[in-house]
Amino acid sequence: MNVISLLLGRRLVIGCSNSIKFKTFLTISPIFELNSSNFMAFQRINHLGLDVPDVWPSLSSSNLSCNSNSHAVDKKNATIIDGKEIAAAIKSHIADEVTRMKKSIDKCPGLAFVLVGERNDSHTFVEIKMKACDKVGIASSIVELPAESTQDEILRVVSDLNSNPAVHGVIVQLPLPHHCDEEKVVNVVSPEKDVDGFHPLNMGNLALKGREPYFIPCAAKACIELLLRSGIELVGKKAVVIGRSKVVALPTSLLLQRHNTTVSLVNSFTKNPQEITREADIVVADVGVPNMVRGDWLKPGAFVIDAGTNAVKDPNGKHGFHLTGDVCFEEAVEVASAITPVPRGLGPVTIAMLLCNTLDSAKRAYNFV
Amino acid sequence: MNVISLLLGRRLVIGCSNSIKFKTFLTISPIFELNSSNFMAFQRINHLGLDVPDVWPSLSSSNLSCNSNSHAVDKKNATIIDGKEIAAAIKSHIADEVTRMKKSIDKCPGLAFVLVGERNDSHTFVEIKMKACDKVGIASSIVELPAESTQDEILRVVSDLNSNPAVHGVIVQLPLPHHCDEEKVVNVVSPEKDVDGFHPLNMGNLALKGREPYFIPCAAKACIELLLRSGIELVGKKAVVIGRSKVVALPTSLLLQRHNTTVSLVNSFTKNPQEITREADIVVADVGVPNMVRGDWLKPGAFVIDAGTNAVKDPNGKHGFHLTGDVCFEEAVEVASAITPVPRGLGPVTIAMLLCNTLDSAKRAYNFV
Repeated sequence: MNVISLLLGRRLVIGCSNSIKFKTFLTISPIFELNSSNFMAFQRINHLGLDVPDVWPSLSSSNLSCNSNSHAVDKKNATIIDGKEIAAAIKSHIADEVTRMKKSIDKCPGLAFVLVGERNDSHTFVEIKMKACDKVGIASSIVELPAESTQDEILRVVSDLNSNPAVHGVIVQLPLPHHCDEEKVVNVVSPEKDVDGFHPLNMGNLALKGREPYFIPCAAKACIELLLRSGIELVGKKAVVIGRSKVVALPTSLLLQRHNTTVSLVNSFTKNPQEITREADIVVADVGVPNMVRGDWLKPGAFVIDAGTNAVKDPNGKHGFHLTGDVCFEEAVEVASAITPVPRGLGPVTIAMLLCNTLDSAKRAYNFV
Repeated sequence: MNVISLLLGRRLVIGCSNSIKFKTFLTISPIFELNSSNFMAFQRINHLGLDVPDVWPSLSSSNLSCNSNSHAVDKKNATIIDGKEIAAAIKSHIADEVTRMKKSIDKCPGLAFVLVGERNDSHTFVEIKMKACDKVGIASSIVELPAESTQDEILRVVSDLNSNPAVHGVIVQLPLPHHCDEEKVVNVVSPEKDVDGFHPLNMGNLALKGREPYFIPCAAKACIELLLRSGIELVGKKAVVIGRSKVVALPTSLLLQRHNTTVSLVNSFTKNPQEITREADIVVADVGVPNMVRGDWLKPGAFVIDAGTNAVKDPNGKHGFHLTGDVCFEEAVEVASAITPVPRGLGPVTIAMLLCNTLDSAKRAYNFV
């Protein structure tokens, strides 16, 4: 049974993902993602309502590709982080732990997805995650709802999953259809099953020193994992995080602070992003603009994590496009000491961290050490 | 009835603070405050547990006082922000609003304090806030519990206040006695009455772009208020926040980001804090070390907010000490374009913002526009 056929059912829960076939493994995101936050009138007493959208420099043709011809292979000096290999090592450890749990207490971690509507990219994301669950022995399930589902219907599904003891993680795949209030839906996911780590309670506890959220967003955990596995000492290092998504930039900046890194946050209003970035030992790029971070933005020896996954039209590409990151890889590789490529960089490790969060949740639920 | 006599009662609720006399208005905080977070063993999979205490440069005698003799009055060029005057203007507006609410719907905002134990400084803080409530017509009340109260007793008091419709703000005065779990107590305060803004749900919603917390921590609101009242354009400006307390530094850094400022966060592990600070258009110092930020740390024309309130022994002082900030005022005033003094700087505006949060909460509860 594949995901397309699941769409035909109004609501269908599959016990495990091992029968799902995959259409594609390519992760596709919009080239230029505008934040949908509304520009609200400024109020003098209440200082919120200032969430103007991030508008990064417009895409000129020069941005779409960087100086891929300017380098020779022998000039490369950065270590290219193999995210897929690292993810495989983490997954192997998780699989061992899941096996140990099954043998010891006859229980298995469970991860449930809620998928509303028929967006191809959302389906692809969920498929990839379910396949990853399957490989390590985590029981994944999916609840599919048609795009016209009411918000109450979605909330009921989430509440059911919250109270299902076999489910240890609940992911509502975003974005939801426009008529749904994403904030309300995300808020209803139990913080104790919020393996994405996007619930404000978990984000607040991540921000607050001395507290522990139930879950840290997977991409942020993945960034730190990559740094630590590369032997980078974080304490006292300068990090620049470019962007401010809740998925990568915000939680990564909070987690880096908890590791006693000195963090600077570059946004689309920053006047001289390249100057600030050039001072950083660690750069995390999360803007959604292909090749925005050029080689001359980087301090020699910087550790560069590219969180961008931009689909750029390419008639020679397998699907009419190719994927590129937010960092001009060909230039950066000549300056940085290490860099995550796109694809095969941060993405696979992020998925491994989702499995890790789910395992942790099940361990907590069963008090399994 | 003064607060000392209140201590004799095991639990006593006062309807309004207007009968309370004040011992002193001096706010006393430890000179050198170590974060009490535990250093927990590092775990490879779960990357938390790294909250080592902030240890800022040790206090040398040269730190305790800065070059107060090096400047002449005519060399001063910074505007010295009169926090008391600004607070008075804000309070006047709040008083008008409270009057309007009383006239229109016969309701009054209510703020309740929970005070456990007999710390003089805590009593003083609460007295100051209650007097401020009284001046604008907000009904304040206090529940005093002896230091040996159990955590359950404290939690019951907080729960009662949560469900009391006449109470729109609940403040548990910190620190609590050592046997209490502050995190659990703060978590029980209803996010809708958390006028301090310290609840992780409110902090998370402050961190998450596009979301609105019920309340923003008062000192952070006060910082932005001071900047905006001074006509500072925040978008695209560089700000440096030194420190990371949940009271000032963390929420201020989050709020500055929401105002599209480029924020760098300096902590006690930052190797060259002065270099980073010297690049900032806006500096917020919140470290608890007297005079740590020297004149040569500042970019000429910087806007400096000093959130420190350090009691430094002084035999000539009225109470055997004098108050000083984290910024060497005498040096900074010659470099900055504006600076908040200590006292009479950020403190009074922070209290005004507490009143503002309480008024907002009552307006929300009564749907009063």
